[in-house]
Amino acid sequence: MVNIAVLGYGTVGSGVVEVINTNHDIVNKRAGEEIRIKYVLDLRDFPGDPVAEILTHDFNDILNDDEVKVVVEVMGGVEPAYTFVKKSLLAGKSVATSNKELVAAHGSELIAIAKEHAANFLFEASAGGGIPIIRPLNSSITADDITEITGILNGTTNYILTKMANEGADYATVLKQAQDLGYAERNPEADVEGGDTCRKIAILTSIAFGKNLDYATIYTEGITKITAEDFKYADAMKSAIKLLGTTKNVDDKLYSFVAPVMLNETNPLAKIDDVFNGIMVHGNAVDDIMFYGRGAGKLPTASAVVSDVVDAVKHMGTNIMTIWEPEELETGDFSDAVNRFFVRVADEAGIEEKINQLFGDVQYVSADGVTGEKAFVTSDMTEGDFQKKKTELGSIINVIRVAF
Amino acid sequence: MVNIAVLGYGTVGSGVVEVINTNHDIVNKRAGEEIRIKYVLDLRDFPGDPVAEILTHDFNDILNDDEVKVVVEVMGGVEPAYTFVKKSLLAGKSVATSNKELVAAHGSELIAIAKEHAANFLFEASAGGGIPIIRPLNSSITADDITEITGILNGTTNYILTKMANEGADYATVLKQAQDLGYAERNPEADVEGGDTCRKIAILTSIAFGKNLDYATIYTEGITKITAEDFKYADAMKSAIKLLGTTKNVDDKLYSFVAPVMLNETNPLAKIDDVFNGIMVHGNAVDDIMFYGRGAGKLPTASAVVSDVVDAVKHMGTNIMTIWEPEELETGDFSDAVNRFFVRVADEAGIEEKINQLFGDVQYVSADGVTGEKAFVTSDMTEGDFQKKKTELGSIINVIRVAF
Repeated sequence: MVNIAVLGYGTVGSGVVEVINTNHDIVNKRAGEEIRIKYVLDLRDFPGDPVAEILTHDFNDILNDDEVKVVVEVMGGVEPAYTFVKKSLLAGKSVATSNKELVAAHGSELIAIAKEHAANFLFEASAGGGIPIIRPLNSSITADDITEITGILNGTTNYILTKMANEGADYATVLKQAQDLGYAERNPEADVEGGDTCRKIAILTSIAFGKNLDYATIYTEGITKITAEDFKYADAMKSAIKLLGTTKNVDDKLYSFVAPVMLNETNPLAKIDDVFNGIMVHGNAVDDIMFYGRGAGKLPTASAVVSDVVDAVKHMGTNIMTIWEPEELETGDFSDAVNRFFVRVADEAGIEEKINQLFGDVQYVSADGVTGEKAFVTSDMTEGDFQKKKTELGSIINVIRVAF
Repeated sequence: MVNIAVLGYGTVGSGVVEVINTNHDIVNKRAGEEIRIKYVLDLRDFPGDPVAEILTHDFNDILNDDEVKVVVEVMGGVEPAYTFVKKSLLAGKSVATSNKELVAAHGSELIAIAKEHAANFLFEASAGGGIPIIRPLNSSITADDITEITGILNGTTNYILTKMANEGADYATVLKQAQDLGYAERNPEADVEGGDTCRKIAILTSIAFGKNLDYATIYTEGITKITAEDFKYADAMKSAIKLLGTTKNVDDKLYSFVAPVMLNETNPLAKIDDVFNGIMVHGNAVDDIMFYGRGAGKLPTASAVVSDVVDAVKHMGTNIMTIWEPEELETGDFSDAVNRFFVRVADEAGIEEKINQLFGDVQYVSADGVTGEKAFVTSDMTEGDFQKKKTELGSIINVIRVAF
């Protein structure tokens, strides 16, 4: 029997308890041991809930109990999660977490501590929710020189963009609906401004390339400026607009960004709708592979956390080799990254001449019922070049990157 | 340094050599050791090819060399692959294979031998080619009660069905094109009659459910009876026709089959075209997850084989827990499996009455330019019930299972 403790009895924490209870026969068989939840840590009380019997308010009860071999951290936020996780690992307990803020900020350090103590720090649920992606990157896609990772990594924004695409509704209306349905937080900033996606692509990049990518250095743009008109243009171009986190490896320099991108409808990511996530990995041998599933939600996230608990139990006393060194990855300057841009600009006198003068041959686009503006798609150009020319162009209405 | 040997220098074997040579820095870093190909076994000679220097025609050179720690078996077919693999494992060498015939026929036995000798028998490439699916089933989707695995597992047939759908061409014409392009074998039986898919779904099911599924017991139907007219109906029903390998878990009994199935276009598998494969797994916690990528081809398959070599090197001297017991899985009688059926029958006098009498409320379908027949979709019914009623119905033109 292996005793575990769950830190945090919120949505994911109660999901972890539910999955371990409901699927105990299968989970125990796969782990090769009976898994028993000895403690649940939460500041709150849960009178009447069976968890009340194993509830503690004091983390030291868990830390000082040598019987607890695996700690599940599903509190979220950097503190006190970081302190609790670090102390657990230093005490030789393995940790499974769904906490992307924690992993993005301290992943390499916590992996190193786990290794020193013959324990494991596992975080399958920190990116892509229920989708197996961390473990495949660490132990399956090991033969390839990875040239790109691109993902739809945030369910809330994908839900909003899908509704906008299907209903022609504007951003504010759909956000309100998403909040009423519980798909978006009352304060939606972390989702809609791209911060959540940013941390997740930083984690995936660090695991795929073996060194640290500081999420704070990633160019990050959210979806708040996307309008119903943008979707009319997307329609005209048979494309979808998706919030992507992307890392490309160009000549051994990595270029990462988070931004809404227009994807041709033949791109498998273009078809990933609603709260689903998808992650595309390109390697020089395997070519494109894609992982698809629920990127959030109580049970899918708990499924990934419990799979980490199973792995921790299977590897009790042995460290699972995980390459994420503290050294920073070599990244290129974002102004050197090459992209194509969809640009909408006010239709002022001489605008076509100016567009052609600045951007050369462009592809003009028109959309049903949108007037008083010119819209076009540039050829490949660097971000720096584009930003310079954009300021010279005139009254920009919107800009969206294009991947086709 | 770890020495390995490659059995078979055909398409996949030469791909394995290429991936290990091209990506050696990355592969060695991830393995934690330098991987050196000491032998390549093939009956042929390859004068002028660098492989000539390490070529042997005698398996005993490899078996008796204690320096060889990992054997890559990419010969295909059950014999002599089985004999070579078994001897390698008995000698404590780990084996990585892409050979679905071998794995489907002897997987559980070879896993057990590997375990007894603190070695590993790994077969990521035996289903889904480059797609990571065996390792995720074994070590990632471990928290879930899996209720279904459904996959497009054969690139040749998916290429043929995609061409038929897009071009309105008939089966024979497209098969010929596929053969000319090298996408289909001169003797295409193993692909088009479903035998390849059958072995792959047997492997995936055995790994997912932990016991053996004898592939010979799986109801298997190929794509040779699918016509251009069937695709006209599929179009009318906004659906795709895909050759699926499916296992469903109903009340702890497994029902497996291989057959062409009409999928609603909203089903993510419906959009997997050409030579790509996709595998959908449904679990009670994680819900639907899908894995997508190249299911065949030199480098994608080699990528999966080399990832197994890396895993074998990382776990030298330790057995990776893999649950595939020799005991047979509890399967239900296929005649009790519940499906819906799309049926085309000659339009004889009184046929509608007869249809309604036998099948109750059905959904009639018509397709542009197809006359002289009636086509309909049944409600859910058992395979046994359907087969009985089918024989009573009249002159059946075709039947395709429906999943929507």
